[in-house]
Amino acid sequence: MPNTNHKLMENIVFTNNVATELQDATNSTAREDIFVLTDCNTLKYCMPVIGELAFKETNVITIPANETSKNLESVSKVWLTLSQRLVRRNSLLINLGGGMICDLGGFAASCFKRGMRYINVPTTLLAQVDASVGGKTGINFNGLKNEIGVFSQAEAIIMDTVFFSTLDKRQILSGYGEMFKHALLAGCSDLKSLMEINPLHAENEFFRKPIKRSLEIKQSIVSKDPFEKGERKSLNFGHTAGHAIESFRIHENKDLYHGEAVAHGIIIELYLSIMKLNFDSQLCEEIKTYLRSIFNIDFNGINAESLYNLMLHDKKNTDDEVNFTLLSRVGEYKTDCYCSKKEIIDAIEHAK
Amino acid sequence: MPNTNHKLMENIVFTNNVATELQDATNSTAREDIFVLTDCNTLKYCMPVIGELAFKETNVITIPANETSKNLESVSKVWLTLSQRLVRRNSLLINLGGGMICDLGGFAASCFKRGMRYINVPTTLLAQVDASVGGKTGINFNGLKNEIGVFSQAEAIIMDTVFFSTLDKRQILSGYGEMFKHALLAGCSDLKSLMEINPLHAENEFFRKPIKRSLEIKQSIVSKDPFEKGERKSLNFGHTAGHAIESFRIHENKDLYHGEAVAHGIIIELYLSIMKLNFDSQLCEEIKTYLRSIFNIDFNGINAESLYNLMLHDKKNTDDEVNFTLLSRVGEYKTDCYCSKKEIIDAIEHAK
Repeated sequence: MPNTNHKLMENIVFTNNVATELQDATNSTAREDIFVLTDCNTLKYCMPVIGELAFKETNVITIPANETSKNLESVSKVWLTLSQRLVRRNSLLINLGGGMICDLGGFAASCFKRGMRYINVPTTLLAQVDASVGGKTGINFNGLKNEIGVFSQAEAIIMDTVFFSTLDKRQILSGYGEMFKHALLAGCSDLKSLMEINPLHAENEFFRKPIKRSLEIKQSIVSKDPFEKGERKSLNFGHTAGHAIESFRIHENKDLYHGEAVAHGIIIELYLSIMKLNFDSQLCEEIKTYLRSIFNIDFNGINAESLYNLMLHDKKNTDDEVNFTLLSRVGEYKTDCYCSKKEIIDAIEHAK
Repeated sequence: MPNTNHKLMENIVFTNNVATELQDATNSTAREDIFVLTDCNTLKYCMPVIGELAFKETNVITIPANETSKNLESVSKVWLTLSQRLVRRNSLLINLGGGMICDLGGFAASCFKRGMRYINVPTTLLAQVDASVGGKTGINFNGLKNEIGVFSQAEAIIMDTVFFSTLDKRQILSGYGEMFKHALLAGCSDLKSLMEINPLHAENEFFRKPIKRSLEIKQSIVSKDPFEKGERKSLNFGHTAGHAIESFRIHENKDLYHGEAVAHGIIIELYLSIMKLNFDSQLCEEIKTYLRSIFNIDFNGINAESLYNLMLHDKKNTDDEVNFTLLSRVGEYKTDCYCSKKEIIDAIEHAK
């Protein structure tokens, strides 16, 4: 196989040999100064892939593998290990895992001695197209997602699709939901390319090109607005409704992955786009049909009024209107579109 | 009295009417979006000075007033209050207090929703010349000072010497110790001006000019090296030995203020400067005599070998040498001067 490593953007490296790439990226740092953050799953399945023997066993920090561990207690544990081992500001932390590990590890590193170096090695499709890039780090706090965090950049982000073998189909779909959102923001040709993929049957390798394109789209938006004052809000497309559905299913104790919730949110927000910005209604139906063919789209049991209330609480905007990013057409978005309760409930009913 | 408010540097405002200045700085922010962080002392003595009625009582967050409260538990308390009160990213936190409050509040604000706005109102001489400016925020962790923190800039730093009426003489001296260090780094005329002051008898107002000059010196060093990669280490002059003395006295349960420890450290490090960089020995004696006339310089019971061990641990540099910033003459410093155990012990004995 030819060497397919190359730098995609400033600090993102695509590789088909993550172990070698990581050795290269760390060979100027003393072995005892390199730390690896994993969760129980990535410790078991991904650590061997990056060449675990290259790292000191005692420098591997492991936290539990679920979203509820993305908290201050886990960060404290990371800080305590780093502090006890006399880690210096120019030591290096490698975050090996999904979005939770990249977000939490990035935050831990950014605050340790006012900032130690870190590298993200995202191991899920979702983390590769979403959490690992864009400079957002954070943890959940007081029951709120990413309530505490900082903007900071990883020294490098190393991507390899080899890790996808450790994922189940729903985890793949979860990443695909975010990629689909990026394509809708970018334009028709991106959307068309993506709709030609059947993510349920694609080989790992196959994802490389679409991931790169998805990251280009995200980077181009983030670079215009790194601190989310305006333009970057466009990345919330599908997320206002999507987060509400995620919360709704959590209350029901039903398990729904992030990108699956986003797919539901996209459908609702396309209906809002028809109402508010004259988005093409036929295209909306086509997209809905496509998403239904890929995802297990299920609005059963979802009460439109409850969903509206969740959105309202989440955004805290006006007294009764909710702030969305909507599309006038594929590739053309508008942030700060306020929708009324009636419009939102109508859109939810259409989506069903 | 003429209006003596003016902007000293980018975001530092000097005023003789802090209440009005703070009103001006916050009048574009809704009253319910403004929060004030205090400790029990500044709540009692300084809150009335800034016009407490202008702020919502329920938006005042108070933590205990001592260095041991500069910890993750206090930060968590601040975050929880902000989160429960649905604070938004463009809400504002006013840190009203000494170095502990400015450091901790700056850190809390910088991480809340990935960064909310904050203003520092430093109420001690030490905080005005040191902790409130330069973009360092942080808390103590695992028994180590400022182990966790970030670099970030306050939206404004508002200085008023009126608060000094709430300080005892030793707190004034503590600030003066840092100003003295700045003067030594800057040059002979700064040193001369400062030695003409008797800080024990000066009126509050009198400090305005020397504080401004001290901040100019600090800013000029910080601006060349905001992230402490090189030049900024010069601000550690007097601190390597000073921190060791501070730790030594803590172990003895003797109370020594930061700037007092720095005054002790300056004397030791001037002797090292004579040895390593040919600093003028007569001038060293003059400075020592002056510092002894102002501070309660007391090396009694200090074991030179223990002090050396504390320095070595603190800096973690080489196996047996300690890294100092030293002076070749007043206004000329050199960072990364490594001193041997023998040199350090000799300097301590000379300082006694």
